[in-house]
Amino acid sequence: MAPTTLSKSDDKKIHAVILAGGNGTRLWPISRGSLPKQFVSLFSDRTLLEETVSRLGTIVGGNDITIVTSATAAAGESMMHLAPYQLLLEPCSRNTAPAIAIAALKLTQHGEDPLMLVLPSDHMIQDVTGFQRDLQLALDEAVNGHLVTFGISPTRPETGYGYVQAGATTANDLQAALPVASFREKPDLETARRFLADGGYYWNSGMFVWRASEILRAIDLLLPELALTVDLIRKELAMGHTLEAAIRTHFASAPSISIDHGVLEKITSSSASVAAAIGTKIPTLVLIPTNIGWSDVGSWDAVRDLSPKDADGNTLRGNVVVHDSHNIQIQGGRRLIAAVGLTDITIIDTPDALLVAKNGETQAVRYIVTELQNRNSPEHLEHITVQRPWGSFTVLEELPGSKIKRIDVKPGGRLSLQSHNQRSEHWVVVSGIATVTCGDRVYELTANQSTFIPVGAKHRLENLGSSAVSVIEVQLGKYLGEDDITRYDDHYGRAVESPTDSLTLEQ
Amino acid sequence: MAPTTLSKSDDKKIHAVILAGGNGTRLWPISRGSLPKQFVSLFSDRTLLEETVSRLGTIVGGNDITIVTSATAAAGESMMHLAPYQLLLEPCSRNTAPAIAIAALKLTQHGEDPLMLVLPSDHMIQDVTGFQRDLQLALDEAVNGHLVTFGISPTRPETGYGYVQAGATTANDLQAALPVASFREKPDLETARRFLADGGYYWNSGMFVWRASEILRAIDLLLPELALTVDLIRKELAMGHTLEAAIRTHFASAPSISIDHGVLEKITSSSASVAAAIGTKIPTLVLIPTNIGWSDVGSWDAVRDLSPKDADGNTLRGNVVVHDSHNIQIQGGRRLIAAVGLTDITIIDTPDALLVAKNGETQAVRYIVTELQNRNSPEHLEHITVQRPWGSFTVLEELPGSKIKRIDVKPGGRLSLQSHNQRSEHWVVVSGIATVTCGDRVYELTANQSTFIPVGAKHRLENLGSSAVSVIEVQLGKYLGEDDITRYDDHYGRAVESPTDSLTLEQ
Repeated sequence: MAPTTLSKSDDKKIHAVILAGGNGTRLWPISRGSLPKQFVSLFSDRTLLEETVSRLGTIVGGNDITIVTSATAAAGESMMHLAPYQLLLEPCSRNTAPAIAIAALKLTQHGEDPLMLVLPSDHMIQDVTGFQRDLQLALDEAVNGHLVTFGISPTRPETGYGYVQAGATTANDLQAALPVASFREKPDLETARRFLADGGYYWNSGMFVWRASEILRAIDLLLPELALTVDLIRKELAMGHTLEAAIRTHFASAPSISIDHGVLEKITSSSASVAAAIGTKIPTLVLIPTNIGWSDVGSWDAVRDLSPKDADGNTLRGNVVVHDSHNIQIQGGRRLIAAVGLTDITIIDTPDALLVAKNGETQAVRYIVTELQNRNSPEHLEHITVQRPWGSFTVLEELPGSKIKRIDVKPGGRLSLQSHNQRSEHWVVVSGIATVTCGDRVYELTANQSTFIPVGAKHRLENLGSSAVSVIEVQLGKYLGEDDITRYDDHYGRAVESPTDSLTLEQ
Repeated sequence: MAPTTLSKSDDKKIHAVILAGGNGTRLWPISRGSLPKQFVSLFSDRTLLEETVSRLGTIVGGNDITIVTSATAAAGESMMHLAPYQLLLEPCSRNTAPAIAIAALKLTQHGEDPLMLVLPSDHMIQDVTGFQRDLQLALDEAVNGHLVTFGISPTRPETGYGYVQAGATTANDLQAALPVASFREKPDLETARRFLADGGYYWNSGMFVWRASEILRAIDLLLPELALTVDLIRKELAMGHTLEAAIRTHFASAPSISIDHGVLEKITSSSASVAAAIGTKIPTLVLIPTNIGWSDVGSWDAVRDLSPKDADGNTLRGNVVVHDSHNIQIQGGRRLIAAVGLTDITIIDTPDALLVAKNGETQAVRYIVTELQNRNSPEHLEHITVQRPWGSFTVLEELPGSKIKRIDVKPGGRLSLQSHNQRSEHWVVVSGIATVTCGDRVYELTANQSTFIPVGAKHRLENLGSSAVSVIEVQLGKYLGEDDITRYDDHYGRAVESPTDSLTLEQ
């Protein structure tokens, strides 16, 4: 499986694989089904995914970064501005082991075998220098064929993380790799306190380094259900099919399991014995202890912990007026938010949904999201501003009989050629030069010009210019559902003339 | 001053004067400068003013109700749907004594002298039957020439109200009128507790009954600064001017003082002695003790006290999802509001401003309003939906270079004939039949038709039909301030060609 020849320079080639398939809504209402946490900006102008990329500095070249994400239209399209990084789409969600497997297949498919750095896309690391230093240590271990996991030195008796226990070691040097004794599930508070007091337990960070071929070998030996999928994909490759096509065909057959549960936890002295008995060897798993201000940003409480605070202990973002309030967190926007007499409260405001929660209980936002799913309310899934490959649209108002949108089209962006059976549309160009197709006519509109799209007319909006086009759309009709659309042509390969999914089909 | 002849039936004629000049923002962000509390619906579909009128039942006829309000454009126009009730406009705010004086002048100007029932417009009474019963007792006292005030039997040691102390009486019958011993300012908590324990102290409700001529006589004797204004107005009437014109000319000269401080508190045994010495008589002041579930609705805490609660002690209005929360109050609308782990919190949400406050501290909202005034932020003054005599408009979005509004015009409504120097406007008719003037042309647009108003063009929007007209307006221009307007004609008598006040001039 490993390449037959490996030059000295190839030997140290590094490729980063960033796992961005998470659909988490723990930071609802800012993160939503259509805009998972990794695509959200929380601590700077950069999204958590962009921070993750940036954190690699010069250790990994831009051409050596692959972002693995689930192929929901929204998530995939939101990321397209990240090019020239490589994208690898999971056709469905199957947790980290299958995602890592297909990434390793991609890295090895042309006979190469780089060191593979696996990173979650939605975590935060405050000490970037420390991260890069410890990453170097991990790479040194991986060159020797080890599987390397980063263990975060715990700073509190956290019950929300899994732990990795280090094995006995002769040196007590935090900067060296340690053997792994065991993985521990999320503990109760008492156990977590003991872990912290005893030492030798580390938070399982989900960051790994290994040679691509070594993790595939471990999967072959320890996770046969996934090895089956890997073999099916390899056969397709051998038949000359592309990796992407093979993944589309076979990925759904993979088990949904994490790399920790599926592979790493099974690397024990007993499994090593069995491997030896059949004449092979399981890679060694080692732990790099690290202390770099890491957080999984798993709740609004975690966001608050990571944010700067004013003299009253408050973290305030947006248009905020505060009176007699302490230890509060406000994430707002243009809307005015006034706080009076509050202590230990988190307020997260978006144009269509507001969360007010007690600090320390923000993880319970999952109950809210579940309730919204049960109600089939859109607020768990969509923002009023929805990203599309051609730009975005924002619903300004929706009333019976009318819907008002602002449509922003990027330079080069093209909406699909489409028609509606039950609504007409008025377009007023606010800025840029819009190219409009309506029936047989194609014409340009500049700012302050308008046009009318009658019911049933085939139409398209394009931006062939070099500056952004902004259009106000007034939709009128008895039925204004997004599923009243027939698509005839789509520049982005989205479904044409077979509307089945309102999320992927809108405009 | 009293009419020379008074028939038996005239003797018992009743006229209700409802004081609706308050500009309070204690219920911000729902009440605002342009929409004071009395025009807000809190406990039903009716505004507090409409509740006040309704509470009179059949005791007072609709033609015998006068609403006194300050003549800010917004407040006055919001009330126009209250016709056929009579309106009396204060040109400026001068507290209750001058408002009551001009109302008494209005009631007596044609030689009549009805019993005058004075009511605040923004209080709540839960026991309407009890109110009507005690009102009858008060009327019986007023027929005898007494000034009657309603004293609310206190139910808690409230420090937010003034108190009236009853004088010694032979009978201990709560249903009889009592003499008034003294007025007490808002007490501290210890004093309020003593008042409650001792008995004989009542909350000063601001509700009064007296014969119109008697309160004018009391003003003449006890509040000479106001008597001066009253005399000036009387002289104008004698010269044949209208009362309205006389008020416009002289009202500003009146002192700003409440009827309690200015007149009622001065009715003492010593002032009566002085009056006797000069051969006249001050009317007697009596108190009707009453226990009718009264509240001045002076804070969001008071609103919560008056609202029904669910099993968790929560009062929830709007699109709300709650998890593990108790004794919370939410006043929302269409926007989703999620509460997690909250106790004793009030959340008041409007499209452009949100208040989150600790229960029991909601009176501190005044600091927020002051801060907004200092910042010159519009959120203390205006809602995004603004009432106008012709209907209303709602700002859907405002960005540099563009502003989107929905304009709703009532049947018969006409915006002013106007032009703008720096912006053009696109109108799309959503419903109804709009009559548009643009330059020299006048034309009708029906739903789904649109038109363009160029920079500088004189234009007007009218609804000559019988159903509402709704128009989406897209304003485009480098400057979109509301003061870029020149008015040529206005159906509602608003300022023409002299723009000075952005509040009254918009559209």
